[in-house]
Amino acid sequence: MKLALAQLNYHVGNFESNTEHIIKHIKKAKQNGADLVVFAELCICGYPARDFLEFSEFINQCEIAAQKIAVECIDIACIIGLPIPNHKTEGKDLNNSAYFIENGKVKAIVNKALLPNYDIFDEYRYFEPSTEFNCIEFKGKRIALTICEDLWNTIENPLYITRPMDTLITQNPDVMINIAASPFAYNHDEERIEILKDNASRYKLPLFYVNHVGAQTELIFDGGSLVFDKTGKLVDELPYFEECLTYYTLDDNGEISFDHTSTVKAERESDIAQIHDALILGIRDYFHKSGFSRAILGLSGGIDSAVVCALAAEALGPENVMAVLLPSKFSSDHSIKDAVDLVDNLGCMSETIAIKSITEAFETALHPQFKDLPFNIAEENIQSRSRAILLMAMCNKFGYILLNTSNKSEAAVGYGTLYGDMCGGISVIGDVYKTQVFELARYINRDSEIIPENSIIKPPSAELRPGQKDSDSLPEYDILDQVLAQYIEHRKSANEIIGMGFEETTVHRAIKLINLAEHKRYQTPPILRVSPKAFGMGRRMPIVGKYLQ
Amino acid sequence: MKLALAQLNYHVGNFESNTEHIIKHIKKAKQNGADLVVFAELCICGYPARDFLEFSEFINQCEIAAQKIAVECIDIACIIGLPIPNHKTEGKDLNNSAYFIENGKVKAIVNKALLPNYDIFDEYRYFEPSTEFNCIEFKGKRIALTICEDLWNTIENPLYITRPMDTLITQNPDVMINIAASPFAYNHDEERIEILKDNASRYKLPLFYVNHVGAQTELIFDGGSLVFDKTGKLVDELPYFEECLTYYTLDDNGEISFDHTSTVKAERESDIAQIHDALILGIRDYFHKSGFSRAILGLSGGIDSAVVCALAAEALGPENVMAVLLPSKFSSDHSIKDAVDLVDNLGCMSETIAIKSITEAFETALHPQFKDLPFNIAEENIQSRSRAILLMAMCNKFGYILLNTSNKSEAAVGYGTLYGDMCGGISVIGDVYKTQVFELARYINRDSEIIPENSIIKPPSAELRPGQKDSDSLPEYDILDQVLAQYIEHRKSANEIIGMGFEETTVHRAIKLINLAEHKRYQTPPILRVSPKAFGMGRRMPIVGKYLQ
Repeated sequence: MKLALAQLNYHVGNFESNTEHIIKHIKKAKQNGADLVVFAELCICGYPARDFLEFSEFINQCEIAAQKIAVECIDIACIIGLPIPNHKTEGKDLNNSAYFIENGKVKAIVNKALLPNYDIFDEYRYFEPSTEFNCIEFKGKRIALTICEDLWNTIENPLYITRPMDTLITQNPDVMINIAASPFAYNHDEERIEILKDNASRYKLPLFYVNHVGAQTELIFDGGSLVFDKTGKLVDELPYFEECLTYYTLDDNGEISFDHTSTVKAERESDIAQIHDALILGIRDYFHKSGFSRAILGLSGGIDSAVVCALAAEALGPENVMAVLLPSKFSSDHSIKDAVDLVDNLGCMSETIAIKSITEAFETALHPQFKDLPFNIAEENIQSRSRAILLMAMCNKFGYILLNTSNKSEAAVGYGTLYGDMCGGISVIGDVYKTQVFELARYINRDSEIIPENSIIKPPSAELRPGQKDSDSLPEYDILDQVLAQYIEHRKSANEIIGMGFEETTVHRAIKLINLAEHKRYQTPPILRVSPKAFGMGRRMPIVGKYLQ
Repeated sequence: MKLALAQLNYHVGNFESNTEHIIKHIKKAKQNGADLVVFAELCICGYPARDFLEFSEFINQCEIAAQKIAVECIDIACIIGLPIPNHKTEGKDLNNSAYFIENGKVKAIVNKALLPNYDIFDEYRYFEPSTEFNCIEFKGKRIALTICEDLWNTIENPLYITRPMDTLITQNPDVMINIAASPFAYNHDEERIEILKDNASRYKLPLFYVNHVGAQTELIFDGGSLVFDKTGKLVDELPYFEECLTYYTLDDNGEISFDHTSTVKAERESDIAQIHDALILGIRDYFHKSGFSRAILGLSGGIDSAVVCALAAEALGPENVMAVLLPSKFSSDHSIKDAVDLVDNLGCMSETIAIKSITEAFETALHPQFKDLPFNIAEENIQSRSRAILLMAMCNKFGYILLNTSNKSEAAVGYGTLYGDMCGGISVIGDVYKTQVFELARYINRDSEIIPENSIIKPPSAELRPGQKDSDSLPEYDILDQVLAQYIEHRKSANEIIGMGFEETTVHRAIKLINLAEHKRYQTPPILRVSPKAFGMGRRMPIVGKYLQ
């Protein structure tokens, strides 16, 4: 049996382009002699379709698309993923399903049993879990087809009370196929390989695993589809962050062979290299799938906006990036120079708009109320918000999309102005801690200096008052980021973090700041997710709550 | 057996105040001779605790609080709700549980089986469903204790595959007790009574139902706890939107008697009266539970800000409400007069800050980029955003919280400026359609004219360009709101809505506008939820998706 694995980039709700894309790859696989081509979980509608799934019209469109695909499956079979109505009276109205299509007809339907409902996942919101498991006969082979999480119920601390493969294995399958929608996080590739390897070796079966690639707003799918032999050895690993179609022959002894050179990585890419590639794909898909091409951002001369500008220039082309310098009376000369140097290095567009006359107009208008009260956060925020108005006005006039440049450390402790520097259509580095932003800058400069060295080495500052530095109000980032990760990623309490050796007042202060900023984060743009716990849909905290300290 | 029902207002994560409040009511119930006092679902930690539940420190605090409560339960028993660790290896790490406490000890633990995971509910994110059901023996009676959704698996189109009462009834219970966290929607009281009545009459048992009261950010719990006799007759209905503690005697024949006058409503309150009371509670709890007392809002002279101002004055006291008039060159004289009249009627604080010099400063600063391009949405938005900066500056200087005044119709079609009039700490009427806002205004004026008649009868306008009216860009609200409700509340497709008799171009236009505004709604404040489908945590739509038209 010759199998083709199709690792493709879908678009949520775009039935026309998804169907066309799938059919194109069925035809190509057929030309290349494949007996079966495998697509990813819920590929028909894209992942995550979220509450689109509650519209019966949406579910109807999925079935119509599947039927269009079915008629192309003559002399080739395919596996596609889609939501279908649950025909049982009891339970939720949908199943998360796979169609096995042969001879123009749906020959078998597999429903997902283990429905992830943690972090960014909401599958139990829509789907009824399956309780019946049957292998599919095809070309003399018995296929154990499962959907993503169905293979993820680990032996230690299992999240679910069943394990579909434990039933399927009793039917003596020859091969496992798993179709997935497994989003990127910088540590996820290792985990994915480990879990799937464990399945192949436990059940002593070859395993073909097909993932999505491409970004859907905040979620970035990295591809990296996998092939294991029946001993659990990883024999092929598809590329990351790009589409591909690969072929494998499975012989009667369950041995796998293929013509192309295996792309199994000798060693893992660094976290920063992966984050870099993920963010490029995230920006590109956000713009192109939305029908936009041109980005705008405010360039301060600092490292965050510099990194975002460089990433945007790589993702969209420098000719599509407008960098706006918005100096105030507190902006230092070197900041302006650093920003200009970056624009020169990248070759992107730029404009300079001074905000002094605007902030003065606000201060004059507010004088009857503010009288002679001292300069404080009110005036600081007026600067940041005036910049946001200017950037949004440029968007409204010329059709740009504003990129948010806040990093995860700032977003965590609320070191940003709501409706000011926290504005934007998409947050590029909102899941990247400040210490990782420095690493990203070094990575971007790996071949030549793109981001001016001075932007990297100078002390971070918001430049909203004379001589301001981040370290005036925040712990040093190398300490802060570790504390943040323990609280945000690992849900450790203050006492547990102090027990790890961090200074008590620093820990309490950091956690207090995180909690006080929940209301701000509620109103921020979607954040490209690159870590196992990003702010946004995967982290759902009360606002009017009393927090643990 | 004498039962007490405690319908109380809790605060998410505030173990100290919740515990104190529960203990106070245990003591009071004991003084009044109760054998058992019943509190609501997850009352120890408040509902919804959301991802606080992922912190083991949070779960520990729940147990510590329960033990403090247990020691008070001498000569009185109590039922409290809390999350507890799931001691089975397989499945999720927590259960949504009830403790039955007697003689200072936890005598029985009941775990919830049916975990709502739709709309605003995420219970399957945290909890493993129970599969074992046992009655509790107390004072010679057998109690079938269930938790909220456990009684909600209806006979037609059941959402779950089990029904806990079908097991419990085989153990011959004498009474059903259900502890709940059932949030308000204007149509929910009828549904709740219907479902619970159906349980009492199907199982032929008296039923005591205890709900939360009080608001937790966007969710408003309306109380309205219920008592049914064994024929399914509603014998008592506790007040809505306020705390109370009531007593009932259950005799050996399963008959219920009580001393107080039954408050079962002869007829339901109107939707608008309920929404009014819910919003007052929502505003009050948002402020008081956050530790704030003073609100600010921009007053345009239009109906939306007038209604929000009146609600805020009732919730917080007019002395705690600052109304700011922010006229531009497009503001009409009557708008300013209407705003001033409202301030006079309410007796709240007010300031006037003209925005002309500010918008001119922006236009001057942008002239090198905008040159002589025609006035368009860019300049319109500058006005709205300049107002937001002024209001936020007042917040930052004086400690106000900004109230958002967008209504649901505007939020739906994106008729609002992101970072402009869409700003605020909480959206008061973001779940109230424009046609309902008119009804609310009439209701507020039911005894005397508080909202100037002119604000109610004049054609709605954003006043961002000369002579602008909402009806220039939007269908009339009485049509639009019906189309919006079909799409948003009922998830009907365009074709289905057209099939109901609505005009084709209006329907397509409305749905297109809704879809185009997803990115704006992503960044808006939490909205007080009063309908079965509010924007916010209960409606989760993709942003970079292709939408059905």
